[in-house]
Amino acid sequence: MADEKNLRIPDIIIKKRDGGELTEEEIHHFVNGVVRKDVQDSQLGAMLMAMCLKGLSVAEISTLTRTMMLSGDVMVWPGGWKGAVVDKHSTGGVGDKVSLILAPALAACGLKVPMVSGRGLGHTGGTLDKLESIPGFRSSLNESEMRDVLDKIGCFIIGQSENLVPADKIMYATRDVTGTVDNIGLIAASIMSKKGAENLDALILDVKTGNGAFLKDEKTARTLAETMVATGKCLGIKMKALLTDMNAPLGRMIGNSLEVVESIRCLNGNGPPDLMGLVIHIGGELLSMTGITNHSDSGCRLLEDSIRNGTALAKFREMLTSQGVAPDKAAALCKDDMDWTLILPSSKHTTPVQCESSGTIQQIDAMTCAIVSGNLGAGRMKAGQPINYAVGLELMVHIGTAVVKGDILVKIHHDFEILDSSVITSLRKAFLVKREPTSTQRTNVVIDVIS
Amino acid sequence: MADEKNLRIPDIIIKKRDGGELTEEEIHHFVNGVVRKDVQDSQLGAMLMAMCLKGLSVAEISTLTRTMMLSGDVMVWPGGWKGAVVDKHSTGGVGDKVSLILAPALAACGLKVPMVSGRGLGHTGGTLDKLESIPGFRSSLNESEMRDVLDKIGCFIIGQSENLVPADKIMYATRDVTGTVDNIGLIAASIMSKKGAENLDALILDVKTGNGAFLKDEKTARTLAETMVATGKCLGIKMKALLTDMNAPLGRMIGNSLEVVESIRCLNGNGPPDLMGLVIHIGGELLSMTGITNHSDSGCRLLEDSIRNGTALAKFREMLTSQGVAPDKAAALCKDDMDWTLILPSSKHTTPVQCESSGTIQQIDAMTCAIVSGNLGAGRMKAGQPINYAVGLELMVHIGTAVVKGDILVKIHHDFEILDSSVITSLRKAFLVKREPTSTQRTNVVIDVIS
Repeated sequence: MADEKNLRIPDIIIKKRDGGELTEEEIHHFVNGVVRKDVQDSQLGAMLMAMCLKGLSVAEISTLTRTMMLSGDVMVWPGGWKGAVVDKHSTGGVGDKVSLILAPALAACGLKVPMVSGRGLGHTGGTLDKLESIPGFRSSLNESEMRDVLDKIGCFIIGQSENLVPADKIMYATRDVTGTVDNIGLIAASIMSKKGAENLDALILDVKTGNGAFLKDEKTARTLAETMVATGKCLGIKMKALLTDMNAPLGRMIGNSLEVVESIRCLNGNGPPDLMGLVIHIGGELLSMTGITNHSDSGCRLLEDSIRNGTALAKFREMLTSQGVAPDKAAALCKDDMDWTLILPSSKHTTPVQCESSGTIQQIDAMTCAIVSGNLGAGRMKAGQPINYAVGLELMVHIGTAVVKGDILVKIHHDFEILDSSVITSLRKAFLVKREPTSTQRTNVVIDVIS
Repeated sequence: MADEKNLRIPDIIIKKRDGGELTEEEIHHFVNGVVRKDVQDSQLGAMLMAMCLKGLSVAEISTLTRTMMLSGDVMVWPGGWKGAVVDKHSTGGVGDKVSLILAPALAACGLKVPMVSGRGLGHTGGTLDKLESIPGFRSSLNESEMRDVLDKIGCFIIGQSENLVPADKIMYATRDVTGTVDNIGLIAASIMSKKGAENLDALILDVKTGNGAFLKDEKTARTLAETMVATGKCLGIKMKALLTDMNAPLGRMIGNSLEVVESIRCLNGNGPPDLMGLVIHIGGELLSMTGITNHSDSGCRLLEDSIRNGTALAKFREMLTSQGVAPDKAAALCKDDMDWTLILPSSKHTTPVQCESSGTIQQIDAMTCAIVSGNLGAGRMKAGQPINYAVGLELMVHIGTAVVKGDILVKIHHDFEILDSSVITSLRKAFLVKREPTSTQRTNVVIDVIS
């Protein structure tokens, strides 16, 4: 680093502009300059655009990731947990509440899950928003609380703390306004720097593809998955990525309270097959990667057991109480037959959407569901906007369901008294009904496993 | 413009990032946002980089130029001057003092020359710096002073006023730090928006190429020349561009006071042929483009006359007094045989560099001369830095001069008591001496005329 002082920011930008591969020294100098505010905003904007248009090599992405990770605090875990600290990360989908079910289930199987999650933006929901619909839930823990909760319970789900990867905070906010969000290298570095700061032993990525995903195109999603797997391995993390289908919503509920309700149903053993299939697949992989089981199949069985015997649900309840939820409320919420509307925000109105023809549900358009749900108030278009925890969609059918005219396809949970008729029309169109031999129910959303 | 409010800055950036052609509306919205500070610095950096890497069409450059030009004041001239308001612009070279000679000569021929010039940066000198070496010289005039001086004298040379093309001021400062300076479209828009704001009838561009030029490569220089000619025509200006050789310095003097001295020698009829050839060529073209003469050849003769009969020199003297120089000093300075060191800053020391072999001077390396001169203090590496008006180089030979060992090649005017021996060595190497048949003296630096 002796020569770092002689590096000029404009020269580093020009090197990338001209398609050069940046050295470790140049990346350090630039990223550290961003955090120290030595790099001007205009220079960061120009560099991000040059990176977008000229690309980043695997070596550059790894260095960028590590440098971003080291720009702030990296979590430190007791030596006794070595090999057992895990997490999963999803690129974001519609109805994706996997983390809420998986984190406590993995904790029940003996793993440590320090999950740092995000809020929703655009058409995808955020794990933190869902949890924050539970009264009292606190999405931040200090360092000693984190260690304490992991020690006693085995999992937490919190937001990005002030000093976790500050470089990413600045860079992400800038990418958002400069048209430089959808670049594989920058996405990989942003995600993996945050996961790296969790100091993980193993990580599974759930990379969504399809019309409800951030990356609609499977080829691009695969490239991102491969890039992040390679980057994580450079950080010394055991990595796998699942490429999963996001053409239809995952599970039946879309919205914040609603997804908490569905997660608790899953932990009570009443989850829909597509969602549970994915939870178990990811859990099985992580249990095998960490050596808790010899094989992912036995990992899957162990995870299923944790749900069947109630230990996963108990972990979920303990996690809630350790993150601020009153014990009696957490206990009531976790009961199988509870009336959730007594505890969680619920919408003022519910409007059913009926089917206008008979046949079999072939597809449910995830993007339409996301947009409708967002317009109801469940999502935000801009960071920092308030959201409505109560509203959302409750799907009454799934792919493969035989329907007749008049059947209810979906219930709209809304707070506006009058629902625009276009909402009902577009939502009805989201359900593709065909008079064809019943297609089988969707139980497996995993397209491929990348390792 | 009705929809301008609905345009989102990130979407405009993304369109350019993806290689799209921006509409008039999008360019207006972006540039006006830059001036109003609605566009964030990071967004400007990203857009400039996207423009650099994806290019700008002729239509985009024209719209960008016009929008930038209209971001501030546009000069207004009396109707009686219609057709007679002209200027020239050089892309910057070593020893280029053409403006100091040409502006008064054109005024002597009846044209109006509202010349807005710049300060030097990097290896090229600035017209304003040279003039500011004259004690009392004031590089700003208000609107009524400008009109008054043009009316009475016919020319002025001033700096960019606060509200002349503010969009360019912001964009140029950002380009400078974001590695987005050397893009043809952005250079053309920057130059032509400022020339457009002078409200010109005719303009000649002097686009330099060669090792002492900003654009070393002739092909790129030609493209810039063609682009600026096309852009100027879109603004309704009669345009021509000369592509000129900048491998060797123009004239014999390099430095601020020194170039003023050489300019006055030229106006007294004692100019070196390469410099005078270029002054006369540009002047002839402008006199013909404005219809003062029927042909550029007769224009050249008219311009030569203005120098021969002393009217050009008188205009120069009047311009100096109208821009703050005391009349007695201006008069003394303009005398043919004056001792300029009594009026202008002169260096403490002069060191000759001798020739070590015999032969003919084949080439004089412009870039080396510029770097040495800059290191002596005649130039600045950063905007706003002070410069030393007194120092520089005085070439004692030119291309084609026969020399013998021991002849003086150049005199170094310096203020440092001890001159580093490497300066002398590198300067000596700048003179290519060969024992070959005497090559002819360089009298024509014009490579091509583009119209």
